[in-house]
Order: sequence, then structure tokens, then C-alpha cells
Amino acid sequence: MLFFSINTIAQWLKDQGLANVFPGIIDHLAADFRRWPDFHKSARHATYYPDGVIELMPCADQNYYAFKYVNGHPNNPALGKLNVLGFGVLTDAHTGYPLLISEMTLLTAVRTAATAALAARYLARQDSQRIALIGTGAQAEFVTWALSTQYQGCQIHYYDTDPQAMRKYHDNLAASSIPVFPADSIAAAIHGADIIVTATAAKCRADLIQSLMLSPGQCYLGLGGDCPGKTEFSSEVLQQCKIVVEYLPQSLVEGEIQNLGPDSVHAELWELIAGTKKGRTTPEEITLFDSVGFALEDYSILTWLYKLAENGDICPDSVLAIVPDLADPKDLYGLVKA
Amino acid sequence: MLFFSINTIAQWLKDQGLANVFPGIIDHLAADFRRWPDFHKSARHATYYPDGVIELMPCADQNYYAFKYVNGHPNNPALGKLNVLGFGVLTDAHTGYPLLISEMTLLTAVRTAATAALAARYLARQDSQRIALIGTGAQAEFVTWALSTQYQGCQIHYYDTDPQAMRKYHDNLAASSIPVFPADSIAAAIHGADIIVTATAAKCRADLIQSLMLSPGQCYLGLGGDCPGKTEFSSEVLQQCKIVVEYLPQSLVEGEIQNLGPDSVHAELWELIAGTKKGRTTPEEITLFDSVGFALEDYSILTWLYKLAENGDICPDSVLAIVPDLADPKDLYGLVKA
Repeated sequence: MLFFSINTIAQWLKDQGLANVFPGIIDHLAADFRRWPDFHKSARHATYYPDGVIELMPCADQNYYAFKYVNGHPNNPALGKLNVLGFGVLTDAHTGYPLLISEMTLLTAVRTAATAALAARYLARQDSQRIALIGTGAQAEFVTWALSTQYQGCQIHYYDTDPQAMRKYHDNLAASSIPVFPADSIAAAIHGADIIVTATAAKCRADLIQSLMLSPGQCYLGLGGDCPGKTEFSSEVLQQCKIVVEYLPQSLVEGEIQNLGPDSVHAELWELIAGTKKGRTTPEEITLFDSVGFALEDYSILTWLYKLAENGDICPDSVLAIVPDLADPKDLYGLVKA
Repeated sequence: MLFFSINTIAQWLKDQGLANVFPGIIDHLAADFRRWPDFHKSARHATYYPDGVIELMPCADQNYYAFKYVNGHPNNPALGKLNVLGFGVLTDAHTGYPLLISEMTLLTAVRTAATAALAARYLARQDSQRIALIGTGAQAEFVTWALSTQYQGCQIHYYDTDPQAMRKYHDNLAASSIPVFPADSIAAAIHGADIIVTATAAKCRADLIQSLMLSPGQCYLGLGGDCPGKTEFSSEVLQQCKIVVEYLPQSLVEGEIQNLGPDSVHAELWELIAGTKKGRTTPEEITLFDSVGFALEDYSILTWLYKLAENGDICPDSVLAIVPDLADPKDLYGLVKA
């Protein structure tokens, strides 16, 4: 079982540069979404605590079985810890033998950003240039890079209720090729934007986006909000949007659509990619990708990592001896016989 | 995140000796079953393949979150691989941060055997001396040791359809303090037995145990059979037994009782341990522990391992850097910034 530490994944991404990595990951994701019927899918398994949630997210096809462990503990930052961390495992579905375990705090940020950019291909106007970013937390720079690879020359107008998070975002991108501009309100950031990304961690019904902020032709990418009772859009806003989700059974519980029901949803993302439904059909319509994060995205990034390792493009930290190697598979006791 | 390899767990068990390890583990299990209402419980998440199954088994309380990955691929032995392998993770439920990852192929065999011995405390006659063992595969020696610590001076009569598995079992225990005797049929092994353990891997409705093998006072421990359509007992046999299961919602799908329904079940194991229901009440009744393996048992063995490590009684192979250590929890991008 190959082990990829946070240091190895971070160094590899730093060496390659996110701008160079995202196009390949987005294409890899698209190829997996396109073969959606191949996958064993289920809503994630969530254990709720008074101050957090811990989830297991499995997804598999005939060749690979993947799962991610991920938490959400909003009180963690006050303890100097991450709100959300993750790690994932890929195994050989033919034998059940493990192939790799990897950090997925970074890889989740990468795949979430890549999925948003993939959805934008079908839901945003191709000539989109102005991007609004509401929430400049841990996800912000990743989605910025993912979108910038698709919308060359775009500019970002960003807003966060936390001035320190805004400064962090600005400092991280000031020396990059992407022009970023602070806004003094959500409305100011959104004004004139073609693509609007919401990536906040508010744990309540936040209604960040008001009806009067909507204007024709916008594409909303709703990345924040991923548990029951946590939403970023009012139902008045949702009713004006063509809504696309990842996996309906999970999104009905966790997504923006949790108050509206299945009839409010135009399509699952894979249907746009496979071509069985259309995304944006007019320059005027308002679209929303109601993203909650689906296990197929973790499957996709883990198989992408595994192929990198198979090709020798990334080296694991170590190989973990986690499975016994027995001459007689029925003689497990032989391992402990005195 | 501490890492315990198969080699480290095997060497530790070998150094201690199973006979010395089981009493403590059985007591640790009993303490966890006794506080059953404290746990977040759910049936395991199973992904079925034409030639196997892959499962995730989470269980948690307010302090610890545990899950096990386990497979079942009956064709694996023909490839020189294990039918069943497992590994497990323990995390801190207060923060979601991972504490350890361990091999669980061995630890599953240990906890399964310990759970069977724990059930026998409530379901077998205290003066039980003769034990029948049907199936001498990977689980056999473990359950033998677990029971032998409770029934001093017991003797084992064993049978398997595979002569090589019978020889393996005999060779493994020949030099031990436990008298073991081969039988030439299931009926011969069971004849006169006080406790009968079934631990076969047949993947069909096997009906190993026939009505005419039953006699008053027996205690059956049904360890094999853990998926829909796989059983070891006929419904005629089941109807004559006082049946105890681990977790009813899961056992109704996977256990021997899958054809009989909830009314056939006398109790969940924890109720006997907590004292809210009685196990065996007369020397004559026939009892059955219909075990399918429940995630609480994995929680229990993983917290047992973690406490051993905290006390310095076992050393992990290494500490895996799987979680980022950030000065600013919102600055995940800082890890990959060029």
C-alpha cells in the first residue's frame, strides 16, 4: 500500500504549479463523470456530533474501489487545527487489496475546484471574464486557479466577512498572473460578474445571495454548504436558476436544493458531460451548480494519483506492509504461532 | 497518525501469546458492549461485486471514531491471496484528527474470536468442556484460544471439508496445551459437544447443521456467514434455538436470521451484557449466537490498541504525516504556493 504524505502531495503540486495541473485533472474528472453508470454510488455515510461531522465517502467501479474519510469541525480553527481534513484510500476491486493511502486535505481542495471548473464548462458563458468569489477561505485560491485555466484573462473580485482571509487571499495571488480585486460587499463583488463562486463555511441558512443580485447570464458555482441546514442561497434565488447537482439523492439532503425537492433540479452534472442533457442554452439564463462534493470526485483524483505513481511521475513516501503475505491463505494463525 | 503494520501486530501477539491476550480483550469488549447506547451505530456499507464484496464498517462514540475496511473475495486464494483482509482507522471524534491506522486482518480474527467467547459467557453452560469446531480456516485457531481461556480443560473436536485445512489446524495446535481431535463428519464433531462453533466460508445456503444434530443444552456460535444469501443453519434448526445477534438491523440482512425475521431473535448481545435480558436460563435450552461481525467490535479492538500504544506497551512502525500543520487554518494554499 503506497503512502503519500501531505508533504509529498504539497511539494509535487508546488513543483508542477496549479495552473499546469488543473487542465489534466479536469479532463480526467470529465472522463469519469462521462461513464457515470459504471459506478457504484451511494450518499456518503455521515456521523453527526454536536460540534462537527465525520464522513466516509465510498465510490467504486469494476476496477477500483475508493473511499475518503473527511471531517468538518468548525471549532477546530480556534484550537489551531483545520476545520476540514481528509485522507483517502484506493483499492483493487478485483481482489480487495489496498493500493494506496494519501492525504486528501489538499487533494479535496483540488478536486472540488476542478469539479467547479468542469461544471462551468457547461453552465457559464464561454466568454466569461469577470469572476466573483464570495468566501476566501481554504478553497479560494484553488478554485481561482482552476477557473483561470479555462477563462484566460479573467479577473477576480473577491469578498469575505473576515478581513484577514481577504488579505491572505490577496497576498497569495498578488504575484501571480491573475488580477484580483477586493470588494467591500457581496453585492459589489457580484455586480457585473459572469461567474460567481460561493465558498463560505457558514453553518446555518446564510442566504448570501439575494434576488436583487441576480442578473441575466450569470453562472453560480455554489461550493460551500455541505450538510443539512447549511445553505448559501434563498429559495427565491434558487427558483430563478437552472440548477445542476452532482448526485441527486445526496444533494437533496445536503445541497442548496434541500428545501425545494427534486423537481427544482434540471440535471445531474454527468448528464451534461455525457450529452444526454444540455447545460446553458441561452446567453441570458441564470445557472447554478449546487455542489456538495461527491465521492466520484475522490475516486477520480485517487485514480489520477495512482496512475501518476504507476508512471513514475510521483514517488510515494513509503510502502506500508498492511496486508499479510501468506503461503497458505487459511493459515493466518501461522503469523502469531509462538 | 500512528501506523501499525501486519508485522508489528503479529510479532506483538506472538510475543504475548494469544492465551494471555484474550482475557483482557474480552473484558474490554464487554465494557464497550455494556455501554451500547453511547455509540453511533449503522449497518456496514457494502459494495457487491460478482466475485466479492468490499465493506466499510464505522462505529463511534463521543470520544473516538473508528472504521474498518474489509473485503471478501472467495476467488482470492486461487491467486495466492487472502479471501478476507482488513485495515482500520481510529480518529479523535472531538476534532476529526486521525490517531492511528492498523492492519486488521489479524485484529479482525482476534476480535471475532473474543466476541464469540464473550457471547458464550451468557449462552453456554458454565461447565462446558467439549467444543466442536466446524471449519478450520483462518478463524479457527483464534476462536479455539479465546474459548480455551474461558473453559479450562476443554477439548476440541474439529471438522472441515478440506483435509489440508484440518492438517493445518492440527499442526498449529499439536504442541499447545489444548487437546484437539479430528472428526470425520460434522455430525461426529458435534456429537456430545457443549459448544459448537461454525466458521465456514461457504458462499451459499449451506445448512451445515441439521435438526437431528441438535441436543439439549448446546450452545451454537455461528461465526461464518456474513452476507445476504450465505447461511450455515436451516430454518428448522433456527426455530429450536434461543437466538442472540449483535445488531439486529444488520443481522436481518446478513445473518442466519435473514429468512426468519426479527421475531425470531431473543436479544442483542449487549442486552445480555448490560443485564436487561437473560441469556441461558436453563441447562436444557439450545442457544445460538448468530454472529456477523459488528463495527463496535472493531471500535473496541482499535481503542484497545490505541491505549496499548499510549501506555508504551506496543510501538507503532512509524508516524504518518497525513494532515497538514498550518499556522493559519484558512491558508491551505500556502502549502503549494510556488
